[in-house]
Amino acid sequence: MYFFESDYVNGCLPQVLEALVATNDDNTVGYGCDPYCAKAAALIKEACKAPTANVHFLVGGTQTNTTVIAAALRPHQGVLCAQSGHINVHETGAIEATGHKVLPLPAVNGKITAAQIEEAWQAHWNDESHEHVVQPGMVYLSQSTEVGTLYSLAELEEISRVCRQRELFLFVDGARLGYALATPECDVTLADLARLTDAFYIGGTKCGLLFGEAVVITHPALNLDFRYFIKQHGGMLAKGRLLGIQFGALFQNDLYVSACRRGVSCAQKLRDLFSELDIPLFAQSPTNQVFPILTKAEIAALRQRHGFEHWAHVDEQHDAVRFCTSWSTTDEAIEALLSDLRALRGR
Amino acid sequence: MYFFESDYVNGCLPQVLEALVATNDDNTVGYGCDPYCAKAAALIKEACKAPTANVHFLVGGTQTNTTVIAAALRPHQGVLCAQSGHINVHETGAIEATGHKVLPLPAVNGKITAAQIEEAWQAHWNDESHEHVVQPGMVYLSQSTEVGTLYSLAELEEISRVCRQRELFLFVDGARLGYALATPECDVTLADLARLTDAFYIGGTKCGLLFGEAVVITHPALNLDFRYFIKQHGGMLAKGRLLGIQFGALFQNDLYVSACRRGVSCAQKLRDLFSELDIPLFAQSPTNQVFPILTKAEIAALRQRHGFEHWAHVDEQHDAVRFCTSWSTTDEAIEALLSDLRALRGR
Amino acid sequence: MYFFESDYVNGCLPQVLEALVATNDDNTVGYGCDPYCAKAAALIKEACKAPTANVHFLVGGTQTNTTVIAAALRPHQGVLCAQSGHINVHETGAIEATGHKVLPLPAVNGKITAAQIEEAWQAHWNDESHEHVVQPGMVYLSQSTEVGTLYSLAELEEISRVCRQRELFLFVDGARLGYALATPECDVTLADLARLTDAFYIGGTKCGLLFGEAVVITHPALNLDFRYFIKQHGGMLAKGRLLGIQFGALFQNDLYVSACRRGVSCAQKLRDLFSELDIPLFAQSPTNQVFPILTKAEIAALRQRHGFEHWAHVDEQHDAVRFCTSWSTTDEAIEALLSDLRALRGR
Amino acid sequence: MYFFESDYVNGCLPQVLEALVATNDDNTVGYGCDPYCAKAAALIKEACKAPTANVHFLVGGTQTNTTVIAAALRPHQGVLCAQSGHINVHETGAIEATGHKVLPLPAVNGKITAAQIEEAWQAHWNDESHEHVVQPGMVYLSQSTEVGTLYSLAELEEISRVCRQRELFLFVDGARLGYALATPECDVTLADLARLTDAFYIGGTKCGLLFGEAVVITHPALNLDFRYFIKQHGGMLAKGRLLGIQFGALFQNDLYVSACRRGVSCAQKLRDLFSELDIPLFAQSPTNQVFPILTKAEIAALRQRHGFEHWAHVDEQHDAVRFCTSWSTTDEAIEALLSDLRALRGR
Repeated sequence: MYFFESDYVNGCLPQVLEALVATNDDNTVGYGCDPYCAKAAALIKEACKAPTANVHFLVGGTQTNTTVIAAALRPHQGVLCAQSGHINVHETGAIEATGHKVLPLPAVNGKITAAQIEEAWQAHWNDESHEHVVQPGMVYLSQSTEVGTLYSLAELEEISRVCRQRELFLFVDGARLGYALATPECDVTLADLARLTDAFYIGGTKCGLLFGEAVVITHPALNLDFRYFIKQHGGMLAKGRLLGIQFGALFQNDLYVSACRRGVSCAQKLRDLFSELDIPLFAQSPTNQVFPILTKAEIAALRQRHGFEHWAHVDEQHDAVRFCTSWSTTDEAIEALLSDLRALRGR
Repeated sequence: MYFFESDYVNGCLPQVLEALVATNDDNTVGYGCDPYCAKAAALIKEACKAPTANVHFLVGGTQTNTTVIAAALRPHQGVLCAQSGHINVHETGAIEATGHKVLPLPAVNGKITAAQIEEAWQAHWNDESHEHVVQPGMVYLSQSTEVGTLYSLAELEEISRVCRQRELFLFVDGARLGYALATPECDVTLADLARLTDAFYIGGTKCGLLFGEAVVITHPALNLDFRYFIKQHGGMLAKGRLLGIQFGALFQNDLYVSACRRGVSCAQKLRDLFSELDIPLFAQSPTNQVFPILTKAEIAALRQRHGFEHWAHVDEQHDAVRFCTSWSTTDEAIEALLSDLRALRGR
Repeated sequence: MYFFESDYVNGCLPQVLEALVATNDDNTVGYGCDPYCAKAAALIKEACKAPTANVHFLVGGTQTNTTVIAAALRPHQGVLCAQSGHINVHETGAIEATGHKVLPLPAVNGKITAAQIEEAWQAHWNDESHEHVVQPGMVYLSQSTEVGTLYSLAELEEISRVCRQRELFLFVDGARLGYALATPECDVTLADLARLTDAFYIGGTKCGLLFGEAVVITHPALNLDFRYFIKQHGGMLAKGRLLGIQFGALFQNDLYVSACRRGVSCAQKLRDLFSELDIPLFAQSPTNQVFPILTKAEIAALRQRHGFEHWAHVDEQHDAVRFCTSWSTTDEAIEALLSDLRALRGR
Repeated sequence: MYFFESDYVNGCLPQVLEALVATNDDNTVGYGCDPYCAKAAALIKEACKAPTANVHFLVGGTQTNTTVIAAALRPHQGVLCAQSGHINVHETGAIEATGHKVLPLPAVNGKITAAQIEEAWQAHWNDESHEHVVQPGMVYLSQSTEVGTLYSLAELEEISRVCRQRELFLFVDGARLGYALATPECDVTLADLARLTDAFYIGGTKCGLLFGEAVVITHPALNLDFRYFIKQHGGMLAKGRLLGIQFGALFQNDLYVSACRRGVSCAQKLRDLFSELDIPLFAQSPTNQVFPILTKAEIAALRQRHGFEHWAHVDEQHDAVRFCTSWSTTDEAIEALLSDLRALRGR
């Protein structure tokens, strides 16, 4: 069986595992106040060219989103995001559980635009009854998005400009940021994210670690007392050094991006095949997710040897599915999938 | 430097680390739906003699407490606990953040009694204005407690009886349960906990794992949709198998208890020395925490080579401090501490 | 100046005011435990042909919605409603502030259908990842809706059937229920609402009272400890009798419906005129709200003598506005508006 | 039957009722944006000598406390108050329902001191683990307190000084402020409250109105977007003018204080009698609440003709009870109570 369900079907990168093994018997204080976390934070700030940023380590993505958003917003404020944004659809209402409404905007290719944000802001403040309506207080983006697409630097610059003009925090969910950075057409760097957002996170769980997300906060108001929020939301790992050790390994020798390149190149092989086979794609992702539209019979046949997610109903005969590749996808697995797909179409 | 600050200063047990290394390249589905979690849950149910219980794996203690309590209570209900209970003092208001009042009761040796619970229940329901008061809906205990003490089986039986009579959920925080079970005078077993509570958790983080807590739920109403709550509270680890792998190793060959014995025996050495030196203890813990009352000069001197926590102010000259031992305390460390303590008192 | 901004521009019905004046010097206990509330509750249960229902009195609509929904849902559940539903758009996130996601469905004429509810339920439970998604736990409707439309008895029967089959609570917001009941084409009675829903409320604020909403709860699980919820949400009026006195007057001699008839008939005069003048309507409301599409110049001219709400942008030249009539609309006011509208179109 | 259960057993002052009747047919916009509210706010600001303060009108006390506290605190912060404070004991966890822990301090005579606040602040910030503990963000006092006692101007000045030094918001619950101001020994004025606090409220419900509390906010950060909070917490009365009309009447000709004087003088008659009869008092209240310790037999006998609250268990034979007088206590009622008390003791 081959696993394309997600980018977290494996353990961690060998370099990360070695670091964990090598340090296992060390003794340190807890809660992320150890030297490993300090070192990893320094590496990340350097990679982000953001010497005054604050870096915090949390365990998982939902937790990170919840914690950042809870720290940023007052109770009457909500967070603008794409309709398809992870916080809107796949976190069991974690944001609402902290009291905040998610304010979804229609997304094209999983993305929203600066113009939509400006329009939402105008709609709120021009409404005579705006005190009866949740006030937008933050914008949430994902890079890459939930359908694998990318914000360009120009798009992000424009969104950032609107957010600063309208006093909306800008927060980028980087659960799959490694795959974005590893994609040839991506022109947004870590330094751009640090410069243009108020906070973003560097996803580890899907990009080579056992677990862990590194939040980079550049807005001082958002950073104030942030560790209280981490604790309150259950994100303050007792053995916090595990996060520092892992991120320390990940930010050595550009491992974060180089490891993720494999995920992108495997996905590209799939896309090339789908193109060759004239199989349409449900979403135009250049990163490590691929969304072909297949017949139900093909899907059933593929499920014999491959795990992958149902994505969307298309019509009576067809569904869209998602294949997720990663830093850990083996040659064997991707070749098996390519060959089974070819066989299905008689090639 | 020797670390007695807590029982999470180290990595994990060698058996646990080996299991993680051995399985690192396996591929599985995520979110705890993998075979490792199923296997670990089976081992735990067997150890608890609770074949119909449900076992869920979460990452940390605060998260586990929050998730269980949020799943159990309706919004107008609160949770009775010792004034010194972890949820009341050391979770940055995580319980209140889910909307529930913590209802503290005065504790003796970190414990509350069945009589206090009955009294609180009576006080609520006999109050003409009870609709204006938070309704007790659950009782929270820790085994061992925050000051290292133990509930006896007789005490737990009585508390359980009151809780069932008064329809209060009973939940036991087992962050340090391994040390309780490894303590000679402890007469409460895992099976007793499964039988007498509605939910309890088996702490992994402090008892030999990198991280992880296993919740055992025996009350069906509490288990209903519990995985939604795990997700909402950020506890659904993407690579959930890491929890199954670790707990699987921990519940082989009685490793959970046998590993924790070292923490208890090291603590006993400390207690014996304090007794020999006529150094009074602030709390009467038979487990892996020791709370001597030392002079401020002694404390300052010890801090040169040893890390430990300030616990309580006693008088102008004295403070109580906490030494925490664990499965990972080395001979070298405990001997160094014993010898430095002897030296301070001229022995 | 004439006020068509809303149906709460006036004080209360003379019969209600008289009852308040007549009882002002009485002494009673507080919090709705007085004889006036008991009497009013009995009258309402009789009007609803629901002898075993529970009736509770709250102060306002947002408060009532929040309290009922908070009492009904567990934290991982959300409430299905029309995109245009009051709880989704005009309560400053009060529902989310209690931790629950509002799950909006596209509305036609302000209404949702049984089929949409069934589809949402299916979509949730057929999703492999449903534990990552907010679970639908309740359906919220408004009668009349936010755009003045009505659910027919057939529609309500069908919605109720789906809700019961799928174990979704059904809750109807009756802020403007009096106007619905007073509308000739309305075939839903109070008894139907009591029979088909789990809870609904009878709006007083917009239908002749100074303030006050009467919640009728027929589902025992929802009623359990409901008064705690009222208190927690700030709805337990100290001088609760004020609600009993007012509703007592309102449910004498069918005053609730008869008073609201004036609102509907005034609105009908407006609709007749718009029809005569070929002025299109933005929403097809048969009740006390009318939504003409006027030119911006006409709107500006009307604002000289009349207050009304901007409703929606239509095109460069046109906006939709809302005129709200009520039990208190005077002949003078409606005639002035009709005559000014005629004059604008040269009639 | 005579009602001494509370200070809200009656309707409203005749001047207030007249104002409501006189304006009943007026038409205004809703939500407190009407001229009556503007007028009342101006009168209150004048009475408080606080021309730059903001005045908001809400319906009830629990709602007001919840709204102010929710607007003031970030999620990791809690509110310091007396153990006996209303928010800690009698609001069904409304504060916790917004996510905030109430941080109770031991009270003497229902009051806390500047020294206690300073100590709590020190305890928090000197704790090495303070990030694991709820951070004090506000101090809540009641004037008069829940047991009828008063903060002196000197006490309030000192508390205010500590709060400002430690950046804690200071909020005073004035549910019974009228009775405080009407008590001869009270040396704190409305102007003092406006000068020394960040927000306080002027209770209407217990002091002559049908309902209504006027919040006076002097700290700009607390006032920012405050109306959104009122709406979110269900406090934005549709016919908001009812609050303006009532407070407008109450702040004419010093009616607020002069009306409350009757409550204080009736209570004084009771205190004089208890002194004469050597009946001890449970709390030393100089305002409109009296807490005698009576035998259970006496209590049972009095209950034949008088309503009052059980307050506290004293011993086998005795309980403390509360008699509450008010602006509306009649000569007949107080004389009946005095005479029945005398009779019980054979005088």
